Amino acid sequence: MTSSPLGVAVVGVGYWGPNLIRNFLGHPATDLHRVCDLAVDHARTVVGGRSEVQVTDSLDDLLDDDVVDAIAIATPPSTHHEIGMRCLEAGKHIMVEKPLAMSSKHALEMVETAARNELVLMCDHTFCYTPAVRAIRELVSSGSVGDIQYIDSIRVNLGLVQSDVDVLWDLAPHDLSIMDSILPDDCFPIEVAAHGADPIGAGQSCVGYLTIPMNTGAIAHVTVSWLSPSKVRQTIVSGSKKMIMWDDMKPYQRLAVFDWGVDIGPPAGDDERERLMVNYRRGDMMSPALPETVEALHFVVEEFSDAIRDRRAPLTDGRSGVRMLEILEAANVSLQARGVLVPIEHR
Amino acid sequence: MTSSPLGVAVVGVGYWGPNLIRNFLGHPATDLHRVCDLAVDHARTVVGGRSEVQVTDSLDDLLDDDVVDAIAIATPPSTHHEIGMRCLEAGKHIMVEKPLAMSSKHALEMVETAARNELVLMCDHTFCYTPAVRAIRELVSSGSVGDIQYIDSIRVNLGLVQSDVDVLWDLAPHDLSIMDSILPDDCFPIEVAAHGADPIGAGQSCVGYLTIPMNTGAIAHVTVSWLSPSKVRQTIVSGSKKMIMWDDMKPYQRLAVFDWGVDIGPPAGDDERERLMVNYRRGDMMSPALPETVEALHFVVEEFSDAIRDRRAPLTDGRSGVRMLEILEAANVSLQARGVLVPIEHR
Amino acid sequence: MTSSPLGVAVVGVGYWGPNLIRNFLGHPATDLHRVCDLAVDHARTVVGGRSEVQVTDSLDDLLDDDVVDAIAIATPPSTHHEIGMRCLEAGKHIMVEKPLAMSSKHALEMVETAARNELVLMCDHTFCYTPAVRAIRELVSSGSVGDIQYIDSIRVNLGLVQSDVDVLWDLAPHDLSIMDSILPDDCFPIEVAAHGADPIGAGQSCVGYLTIPMNTGAIAHVTVSWLSPSKVRQTIVSGSKKMIMWDDMKPYQRLAVFDWGVDIGPPAGDDERERLMVNYRRGDMMSPALPETVEALHFVVEEFSDAIRDRRAPLTDGRSGVRMLEILEAANVSLQARGVLVPIEHR
Amino acid sequence: MTSSPLGVAVVGVGYWGPNLIRNFLGHPATDLHRVCDLAVDHARTVVGGRSEVQVTDSLDDLLDDDVVDAIAIATPPSTHHEIGMRCLEAGKHIMVEKPLAMSSKHALEMVETAARNELVLMCDHTFCYTPAVRAIRELVSSGSVGDIQYIDSIRVNLGLVQSDVDVLWDLAPHDLSIMDSILPDDCFPIEVAAHGADPIGAGQSCVGYLTIPMNTGAIAHVTVSWLSPSKVRQTIVSGSKKMIMWDDMKPYQRLAVFDWGVDIGPPAGDDERERLMVNYRRGDMMSPALPETVEALHFVVEEFSDAIRDRRAPLTDGRSGVRMLEILEAANVSLQARGVLVPIEHR
Repeated sequence: MTSSPLGVAVVGVGYWGPNLIRNFLGHPATDLHRVCDLAVDHARTVVGGRSEVQVTDSLDDLLDDDVVDAIAIATPPSTHHEIGMRCLEAGKHIMVEKPLAMSSKHALEMVETAARNELVLMCDHTFCYTPAVRAIRELVSSGSVGDIQYIDSIRVNLGLVQSDVDVLWDLAPHDLSIMDSILPDDCFPIEVAAHGADPIGAGQSCVGYLTIPMNTGAIAHVTVSWLSPSKVRQTIVSGSKKMIMWDDMKPYQRLAVFDWGVDIGPPAGDDERERLMVNYRRGDMMSPALPETVEALHFVVEEFSDAIRDRRAPLTDGRSGVRMLEILEAANVSLQARGVLVPIEHR
Repeated sequence: MTSSPLGVAVVGVGYWGPNLIRNFLGHPATDLHRVCDLAVDHARTVVGGRSEVQVTDSLDDLLDDDVVDAIAIATPPSTHHEIGMRCLEAGKHIMVEKPLAMSSKHALEMVETAARNELVLMCDHTFCYTPAVRAIRELVSSGSVGDIQYIDSIRVNLGLVQSDVDVLWDLAPHDLSIMDSILPDDCFPIEVAAHGADPIGAGQSCVGYLTIPMNTGAIAHVTVSWLSPSKVRQTIVSGSKKMIMWDDMKPYQRLAVFDWGVDIGPPAGDDERERLMVNYRRGDMMSPALPETVEALHFVVEEFSDAIRDRRAPLTDGRSGVRMLEILEAANVSLQARGVLVPIEHR
Repeated sequence: MTSSPLGVAVVGVGYWGPNLIRNFLGHPATDLHRVCDLAVDHARTVVGGRSEVQVTDSLDDLLDDDVVDAIAIATPPSTHHEIGMRCLEAGKHIMVEKPLAMSSKHALEMVETAARNELVLMCDHTFCYTPAVRAIRELVSSGSVGDIQYIDSIRVNLGLVQSDVDVLWDLAPHDLSIMDSILPDDCFPIEVAAHGADPIGAGQSCVGYLTIPMNTGAIAHVTVSWLSPSKVRQTIVSGSKKMIMWDDMKPYQRLAVFDWGVDIGPPAGDDERERLMVNYRRGDMMSPALPETVEALHFVVEEFSDAIRDRRAPLTDGRSGVRMLEILEAANVSLQARGVLVPIEHR
Repeated sequence: MTSSPLGVAVVGVGYWGPNLIRNFLGHPATDLHRVCDLAVDHARTVVGGRSEVQVTDSLDDLLDDDVVDAIAIATPPSTHHEIGMRCLEAGKHIMVEKPLAMSSKHALEMVETAARNELVLMCDHTFCYTPAVRAIRELVSSGSVGDIQYIDSIRVNLGLVQSDVDVLWDLAPHDLSIMDSILPDDCFPIEVAAHGADPIGAGQSCVGYLTIPMNTGAIAHVTVSWLSPSKVRQTIVSGSKKMIMWDDMKPYQRLAVFDWGVDIGPPAGDDERERLMVNYRRGDMMSPALPETVEALHFVVEEFSDAIRDRRAPLTDGRSGVRMLEILEAANVSLQARGVLVPIEHR
């Protein structure tokens, strides 16, 4: 029985839905039965020619179908909570696109409902399943990076200006979910300062900055923009022993692990002008070979079906979605307060 | 008489002094007579073998020498004011490394003394004389970039941790001087928020961020770090018509001018959920050929000697040094106030 | 009737076949009915879950099916001729992977059979349908590049060492087909010198070089290797007015069009040591915006169905496949003759 | 006595001479007394203001000066033999720019004269003293690269079209000298095939290719061009254990050492269609930290003065200059014979 594939359905065939459909169809552990979208004809085109996958505009068709064990939700963010709750209440496991909901309160309600019904709630934080982030996570958790000192993440391009969310809510979730999955448990954000700019009169921030002090004294910084001439996706993870630079625009050398660093020694001399004793380590750079032949979403589908089979929390569980929303909500407050540091409330 | 070269001297033969010496010796408009440094032997080595340039450890030797018309000051920042004032009072034109002084008040005193004595006071903001910054300045002033929307500048590397100044005072002056020289007169910083981190226990910020709202609604952002694995020097100047990306680590393609942009049109439809009409222009990219054969400091020397000869203010005059200090001082206040926006006082 | 989609089938589901299947399924102008491969189970997996596409191991099933108008052949090269001839004799249009056949004689027979039966024979030279090659072709044909002076193409990576073909037959066809599609009609290869090396004892060349003089005095050079540490795909097309550099490893700046060049003026002076008067033009570089959202194979499918509908030769017709084989055959002779220039026989 | 600096002079203040002058002046082991050039005024400008270095247009002034122990010759190649012989006969050690002479016969005469007079004859093959080439040499000689399989070197840019030498003689010497200094003693060139093109009517090759089989079955290939839109300086050294890619246009990552490779195992199966058993190793990439703060010519000067002091042959001795000319001469013959492989005669 465990060997029969998981029956799945997808709700929402917009930007990301087609990727979910392709990966559910291509993975041996899942069997895509139904796709739901108000634009039925478009959904049918996406499903492709000569396909037996059922297309519908009614969510109930999915909820009522017993062969559908799990539902992936790729609708607009403002609908995640309602659709997610209906799925959970119908006994379906769910995987939800970022952000999990429009508020941490709503997200928490979803998490608790899933727990009560013994269902899996997974956030599709796709980047966390890329070979690059997996490698960074292992480098950090193995201790070879040392204590995290700072994280600097840049995600800018000429992106689609959204009408319902600002650039922080649109793009920073990627960086926050990556951070969340990389950081050790004893290192977490405690405050956030947010700045934004709307130089084109879009009515909301199109360029945004987050500054995020951690409980350990480390700091994270995120730059996001819809208005940048060329695509930059760069994350620096700096530790006391090594520094990792991840440049996702270099497909053949995404990661560079520098055996470089700076240490401060004890003050030298007892005269009044004590001088800093700074030691610079300038070792070699190593770029690990990453297994790149399989797309990250394949591993997302795998983690989802594995978690359901094993009745365990997935790597990017609902809690990670709640934590992200807590930071985004504090960022909203900071933005309104012109950039003051706002404490992050952990529910 | 005007054709005889300018008699010059250099004070301070540390990191930057040797470059000044080489360029004063190599420029036909200047004649280097004297070099002053407490470490006389080191200074003699820098001046080089078989040279007739006089080396001394006494500033008075320079001030008393009538053939010395102008003095370049490359000593530690904390000495700029005192040495500069003595030079000006001795009737010497001066060129001063950044920052001009340790406070805008001291800098202003130097500016006023120079004006009173009809002497040239130039800040050696070398980057402003590079082909890249010259080209950006022309693109902006010609109007082809349109209104400035935002500026994002990153300057990080594994740098020398300083004992007397933090990373904002050490590195951000480059970005601030570049911005100052690029921006049109009617677009200027009005506030600054500063964040810093000291993850290595250096006693001061080793990673720093500035967020700088402008009077026009534009925004500038500066990232500086002494602790980065690889050197990044990247500045984006985004306008309403074009966007410029300057990557100084690409010696054969420093500038990329994108004929890209985003415009917001009038709202479409009169229903409650008005939708944004966003137009994206995606034109070609142009990378201008830059004349790279001559080093920027050559043009600094030229501007200094031209300004003295023509009795005019140089491009990077003392006022630009004062403006930079006003921003750095406000940043200091913001840093102490944990990142709140602090107004920039223009003296 | 013309609006009903073209009925197609695919033979061979190895490396490239899955891409053909995905694109035939995704294009509105084609309707994929059948897929043929000896490994039926693998083929079924590739076709994907919940699909009505018929899978068979018998070519006759395709040839006998009247709804199949056209067949794409993605089997090993040594079978192209036999399978292609059977398809053509059964009245099916064909699209064939490179190389069209194992000899120009065989390829010519296929071309003539297709012509006699009024069928389309298209070579799937996919690169010729990329935005980059389309843009180069337009730049050359518009005259803005001037006369072609030289072409230098590098295609190296850590590739699969083949047991049946050497690296020249495996990789150079890409470069030769690109050249064939870029060059104007009055500029063509007349000779070829080939060098190869087999440093790993594979029994055939794993590194290869082609030098190809043209009728105009221009020269082309191709470097291919299975043994290179990092992937390089770089083609320079140098003309008398502009130079194009295509770097396919830079997804956000594939093409750089340099307004640079060198002209030789008339000799200056009548003394014995006449000196060259060389003029260097160093203008700006322009990188055209390329439409990258659609994969090249989509346009291959489109050209195939358009050509069949319009009863015309496709851009990469059978003749282009014959020309490629003429060069490869001459290269084989040169390789055996240790690199001498061998004339290319145009049939 | 040994601690007194070496008295040196420079002949020829054209393109390279100024660099020699700067480095002789800047190195504590050398004392530059005299500079000789027919253009005395230009030479004086290059020597710089306030200098006591003597400038002359007479070589005899150098030869007659007893404090001049050694002379660096940076005049046009056609004069190297005559000037070099006069220096050697006057008892001066010499360092000569590439190529050592216009023929291997002349070069050998210089080598033998130097030997007879117990003088040092060094070739200024500057690239051999860069941190990158030093690191490659060590990686090869330590055995970690394994057996050399192939070397591919590209050196193209928009260069100065020369009137007296073709592009192979102008640029390939750099690649040949680097190869010569990297290769172990038991691996050397035995033949060369040369192709060239003159698409601009310069009267000689402006684009050139060398294919160079080695005694071990390895192969080297060199691409040089004066007519390329962007500067490329790339050398691949491929061994049986590691592969090195040197990209000199990446100042912060010149070397990439790939723990990649391909091995051929024993044939699998006894059926008629034996299949290749190919093993691909795809390990990490390592980029060694290189000490970049000192320019390579500094080490050239050091090696020259050390060799004279220690009465030993320098790393790039006259023999290496003779070997380079033997290859260039064979390339000339090949070029005239339209690319046939020509044996390299080792004198």
